[in-house]
Amino acid sequence: MNWHYLQPVTIHFGNGMIACLKDEIRRLGGTRGLLVTSPSLEKNGLAARLVADNEKTLQTVYSRVSPNPDVSQCDACAGLIRQNGCDFVLAVGGGSVLDCAKAAAAFCTAAAPASEYLEKKRPLPEAHLPLIAVPTTAGTGSEITRVAVLSDHQKGLKAPLNTPVFYPATAIVDPELTYTVPKHVTACTGMDVLCHAIEAYWNIHHQPVCDALAIHAARLVFRHLETACEEPENALAREKMAEASVTAGLAFALPGTAAAHACSYPLTSNLGIPHGEACGLTIDHFMRINAEKDTDGRLRELAFATGFDNACSMADAISELKYRTGLKTSLAGYDLTDDQLEKLVQASLHPNLQNNPVPITEAMLRDLYRDLR
Amino acid sequence: MNWHYLQPVTIHFGNGMIACLKDEIRRLGGTRGLLVTSPSLEKNGLAARLVADNEKTLQTVYSRVSPNPDVSQCDACAGLIRQNGCDFVLAVGGGSVLDCAKAAAAFCTAAAPASEYLEKKRPLPEAHLPLIAVPTTAGTGSEITRVAVLSDHQKGLKAPLNTPVFYPATAIVDPELTYTVPKHVTACTGMDVLCHAIEAYWNIHHQPVCDALAIHAARLVFRHLETACEEPENALAREKMAEASVTAGLAFALPGTAAAHACSYPLTSNLGIPHGEACGLTIDHFMRINAEKDTDGRLRELAFATGFDNACSMADAISELKYRTGLKTSLAGYDLTDDQLEKLVQASLHPNLQNNPVPITEAMLRDLYRDLR
Repeated sequence: MNWHYLQPVTIHFGNGMIACLKDEIRRLGGTRGLLVTSPSLEKNGLAARLVADNEKTLQTVYSRVSPNPDVSQCDACAGLIRQNGCDFVLAVGGGSVLDCAKAAAAFCTAAAPASEYLEKKRPLPEAHLPLIAVPTTAGTGSEITRVAVLSDHQKGLKAPLNTPVFYPATAIVDPELTYTVPKHVTACTGMDVLCHAIEAYWNIHHQPVCDALAIHAARLVFRHLETACEEPENALAREKMAEASVTAGLAFALPGTAAAHACSYPLTSNLGIPHGEACGLTIDHFMRINAEKDTDGRLRELAFATGFDNACSMADAISELKYRTGLKTSLAGYDLTDDQLEKLVQASLHPNLQNNPVPITEAMLRDLYRDLR
Repeated sequence: MNWHYLQPVTIHFGNGMIACLKDEIRRLGGTRGLLVTSPSLEKNGLAARLVADNEKTLQTVYSRVSPNPDVSQCDACAGLIRQNGCDFVLAVGGGSVLDCAKAAAAFCTAAAPASEYLEKKRPLPEAHLPLIAVPTTAGTGSEITRVAVLSDHQKGLKAPLNTPVFYPATAIVDPELTYTVPKHVTACTGMDVLCHAIEAYWNIHHQPVCDALAIHAARLVFRHLETACEEPENALAREKMAEASVTAGLAFALPGTAAAHACSYPLTSNLGIPHGEACGLTIDHFMRINAEKDTDGRLRELAFATGFDNACSMADAISELKYRTGLKTSLAGYDLTDDQLEKLVQASLHPNLQNNPVPITEAMLRDLYRDLR
């Protein structure tokens, strides 16, 4: 089996690790940075604290990144970078903030609007400013990947952009920054971590380094997600979920995700289900489908390695974990019409679907959504 | 727990992957390279094949690297690089070749002799030529680490040099290149892999990414080393041992090694025992010592994850693996005098000894060597 590996992001992990930000800015030669963040982190004072702690190097702030960041937000960031002559970018937030900042740090080096890259009208830039990525949820993994998912809400477009230029220079993963994440967001993002790990492992593009990290991450989610939800300041649970998030990020960064992520996109855009919850809605179902054709025994090995007797027990444990953390286990509340259901099926025929080890047909998706309805 | 991770080496892995060498040279912008290799790889024709396949870019060859490479070999390589205006280095061989080439690719950028760096008379260079590392044994891990171990035989010095400048740009790991490795060398280098994995895991500097890779590598050694020794062209066993070697390399690259490696240095220099065999001689003994004080249960988890009931069973399995692959399980053949034994004890007080989770005293080393005698 042939495989390739590259992971150029420097990771600093630990409680209070945000304190190394000043050193990292210095190491990267940053003199004038743009802080990209979200309204909630401006409101809770984190953004102001970081600006105060780094007053010489952080003067410009963009704090309007929304979930499913829009190309216009990306353009606004790139504009601020150019107007203020910034030489580095600091992204502090969840996946949306990190994605928006990763794209802006590259797009600012050319004059074109972000929408042209999203529509593939021009090749992605080859230059970029150094970026420091600080995740504030245990879920995204975006701090160590080369992908940014952007939307053009006006045109109804949402797509991942993928280039080595998007690799952050540094990821600072500080579990304490996740203590204020509400219970439901903790559950959603934690389920996303589990899906990253599982879909990296059973991906047709799986490879050994990512396999090992996927197993590590999946074990941690089963052990610590429920506690992180129930006890938001439980230091061990928060630390281990942050560890799970970054190791799952390393795991899926190269193989990508698979069918549960493919289905999540329409579940989010058509029904408004948060990303991680949407991924979790189908992951145990795909595990049962994949377990039936586990010819090379890899899925059984994943189950063993994460502490289960077999893949079906592991799928049951996922269902139970969803139930116990308050995540949806069905689409019962939506009263889906046949037409809505068919739209979900069609929109789930996303390229990531093909990364599933067992080919997933339209008919299988239809059955799956009927079961969930 | 705070931890840090960086792994900037691009890895290409697979049977026949050496064919991507041309692309890698092009990607790195190489126009004129120095091939560093060993006499045996010159003799078996691999060096000539690589030169013929890359005739426009590989014209200069240094093929005299010996085990425990000497500073003079490093100087010879650096001299060839300067004389021929080389702009990249290709290292093809075992750990000695890779280490010599890594150092030469940096030392060539200044005029000082290698001995001055080894004696810490001057700081290591900050510039270096890009290096492509191609291991031909499943053991070293040097293809993805930032360490080079050099010796000054005239002055009786041997020490590791450690700098980010030594990271190869690319590692090409082609299991087929290991098919010609003799049985005993396969056993020695495979045992080195197991020691890298175990000592990375129980190292006081352990961290989660490296833990996950250490578990992965150790499992593979238990499953495949014996077959690789018995059936040198068994494709699965050779591939899995090559995979174990590079993942164990990733595992110990940051935490380093521990007591078994500390003891291995005098076992090699005083008694001539090959490096991997020397490491293996004490690893199961340190496992039993560490198992007695496994207060955090990490060693028990390692044993579980690698398929054993507990650390003692794992230690027994190592002893048996040594026996079955023809590696020494004692020092019985050496008729060691008390004086010789004491010299081993004193020379084992190497800094890596302090990476062991349980403090190892002189008295413990003395007992250990007496048991082995």
